[in-house]
Amino acid sequence: MEGQYRLGDFELQSGTVLKDAFVGYETHGELNADKSNVIVYPTWYSGTHESNRGAIGEGRALDPNKYFIIVPDQFCDGFSSSPSNMPPPHDRYRFPLVTPYDNVIASHRLVTEYFGIERIKLVVGFSMSAQQAFHWAALYPEMVERIAPICGSAKTSPHDWLHLEGMKLALQADDAWAGGDYDSPPEKGFRAFFTVGAAWFASQNFYRRGLHLTLGGNEFKDIQEFLDSMLDAFSAMDVNDYLCMLLTWQSADVSNHPEFNGDLQKALSSIICPAIVMPCETDLYFPPEDSELAVSMMPNAELRIIPGDSGHLAGMPGLASPDDDKFIDNALFELLENVS
Amino acid sequence: MEGQYRLGDFELQSGTVLKDAFVGYETHGELNADKSNVIVYPTWYSGTHESNRGAIGEGRALDPNKYFIIVPDQFCDGFSSSPSNMPPPHDRYRFPLVTPYDNVIASHRLVTEYFGIERIKLVVGFSMSAQQAFHWAALYPEMVERIAPICGSAKTSPHDWLHLEGMKLALQADDAWAGGDYDSPPEKGFRAFFTVGAAWFASQNFYRRGLHLTLGGNEFKDIQEFLDSMLDAFSAMDVNDYLCMLLTWQSADVSNHPEFNGDLQKALSSIICPAIVMPCETDLYFPPEDSELAVSMMPNAELRIIPGDSGHLAGMPGLASPDDDKFIDNALFELLENVS
Repeated sequence: MEGQYRLGDFELQSGTVLKDAFVGYETHGELNADKSNVIVYPTWYSGTHESNRGAIGEGRALDPNKYFIIVPDQFCDGFSSSPSNMPPPHDRYRFPLVTPYDNVIASHRLVTEYFGIERIKLVVGFSMSAQQAFHWAALYPEMVERIAPICGSAKTSPHDWLHLEGMKLALQADDAWAGGDYDSPPEKGFRAFFTVGAAWFASQNFYRRGLHLTLGGNEFKDIQEFLDSMLDAFSAMDVNDYLCMLLTWQSADVSNHPEFNGDLQKALSSIICPAIVMPCETDLYFPPEDSELAVSMMPNAELRIIPGDSGHLAGMPGLASPDDDKFIDNALFELLENVS
Repeated sequence: MEGQYRLGDFELQSGTVLKDAFVGYETHGELNADKSNVIVYPTWYSGTHESNRGAIGEGRALDPNKYFIIVPDQFCDGFSSSPSNMPPPHDRYRFPLVTPYDNVIASHRLVTEYFGIERIKLVVGFSMSAQQAFHWAALYPEMVERIAPICGSAKTSPHDWLHLEGMKLALQADDAWAGGDYDSPPEKGFRAFFTVGAAWFASQNFYRRGLHLTLGGNEFKDIQEFLDSMLDAFSAMDVNDYLCMLLTWQSADVSNHPEFNGDLQKALSSIICPAIVMPCETDLYFPPEDSELAVSMMPNAELRIIPGDSGHLAGMPGLASPDDDKFIDNALFELLENVS
C-alpha cells in the first residue's frame, strides 16, 4: 500500500526548515497485533519505493506474509519532498541539503507517529539505504533490533565522495542544466553523468565477462545498446532530484550528530544490536574495507562479504545475480531468526 | 637530447594519411658501438617525453650511463603530430584515429631509419605505454628482446573503454568544447573530465589513507585543494590532444593487425621474448586480471603484481610511492641482467 505522511514544517540538520514536508512510503504485509513484525527498508540512489519490491515476496527473507515491511522514500526521490515537487524557495536546485539523519528522523516520525510502532525487528538497506541502516541503529538503539547494511558504508569515504563529485560535475558541465533551471533535461550532461556512473556500478570483471549484455534479463547487442537502454530507464527521474540525492550521499556520516560529535568510533560502538554487514567484494563504490572498518568498531556485528563480480549491483533487486540474491536472503533469514 | 623525426606522409591503420607527420622524442645516454644497449620507453596518457624523466637516472634500472634510452612521444601528445599542431584537414578534433600500432610503427621508423638500430634490449612502458610494449613485441619479435608492461593491458577491456567513454562525454558535455573548435578551453568540461579521472587513477584506500594530500611532495589542506592543484597541472595539455589520445587508448588491441586478425591468443602467444608484466593490485583502470589473461597466453612471461594502494599511479614516475619505484626497478634490473 502506497501512501504519504505529512510532516509539517521539518527542520533539517542544517537548520533550514522544509515547509510542509512529506514522506512517501509503501508497506507490504500486515502489522501484527503487538506490532512486533516490523521491517524498515529505505530507498537508495536512483530508486523509489517501487525499486525495493524486487527483494520482497513470499518465500523471500522479506516475506510480506510474515512481516510488515515499511519502505520509506528518502527525500529527493520524487515521492518524498524533492526538488521536483517543492514550491519556491526550495524548488529545483534550491532544495536544501538533506543528510541521512534527516531522512532517518523523517522516517522515524512516519514509523512512530503514523504507525504507532515502537520496535523495529530489522532495518535492512542497500547502498544509500545501507547508510541509513547504520544511522537508524546509532540514533535509535532502543528501537532497532537488528540491521543489515548491504553494499553501503557508515560514512562516505573520500574516494566515494570524489567519484560522486565527478558525476555531479559531468552533469553540471552541460549549459542546458542552467543551474538547475533547465527547460528540458540536459541530455549531454545526463548521458555523461550516467556513463560515468555505469563504470562505477559494476566491476571490471562484470564487463569483461559481458554480463552487462544480459543485465536485467535483456539481450543487448553491444555496450552502446546497453548504455542507451539503461540511460532511458534512468531518465525517468528528475535531474535535480538525482543531484540532491547525490549531495545526501556525499554527506553521509553516522558520526555527524550532536550525540557523537564527529567521533566515528563513538557512533559505531553505540550500534549494539546484532548486525550482518554485507559489502560485495568487487564493489567499486563501497569496497569491503569500508565495512571492515565499521564492523571493527561495532560490538555485535559480523562482516559477511558477498563474493563475485556484480560489484555494487550485488545488492540491487532486479540487477543482482540470483547468487547475490540468495546470499543476501540467507543472511537475512539467519539474522531474523536470531532471538533478539 | 630532444628531437623530432619527420615521417613524411604517414598512412594510419584506418587508411587515412597523416600529411607531413612527425614523431617527437628524447634520448638519454649514449648509443654504444654495436648498438646493443637500446631501451625504448614510450609516453603515456597525459604525459610527454618530459614525464618519463622521473624513472631515468644514474643508479636506476633505466640508467643513462649504461643504456641508450629512447622516449618516443606518442601521437597527440603535443610533441608528435597532434590535434594541437596539425593544419587542416587534420587539425583539432578532426585529427584521425591513431591506434597503438600506428604509434609503434612510427616509433619503429624513428628507431630503425634515424638511429639505425636493429635490436632493442627492452621496451618498457607504463599505462598506454605498457599497451605499446605489448604491441612492439607482437609486431617486431625479431627486434624486441624483452618487455616490461607496467599498469597496462594488451587490449583495452570493456570496462576500461567505458570509464574512458565517461571521461570523454564529461568533457564534451560542455558547450564551450564546441566540437573541438573552442576559443578557450572548456573549463567546466575539463574540470569534470579531470575529476572523474582522479577517482580512477588511484585506489579507494589511497584516498582513505589521505595519500592524495601529500601527492607529489605537496601538502594539500583538503581534497578540493588537491583537485584544484592537479587540475592546474593537467591543464597544460591541449583538450583535443587529450581527447584524441583517449580514442587511441580505447582502441588498443594487440590483435588488431592483419597478422593476427583479431585473434588475441595468436597475438599474445607470438610474444616470445622474456617479459615481466606488472599490474598494480589496486589499479582501477587495469586490474591484475588484464595482466593474468595476457600472461596466460604468453610463452615466456611472468606476472609480478605491484602490492599496495597506489592504484594506477604505481607506475607513474613522480607520483608513485618509493616502494612502487623500487619494486619496478628491481624487476627491470632482473629483466635486463638476464642473458637473452
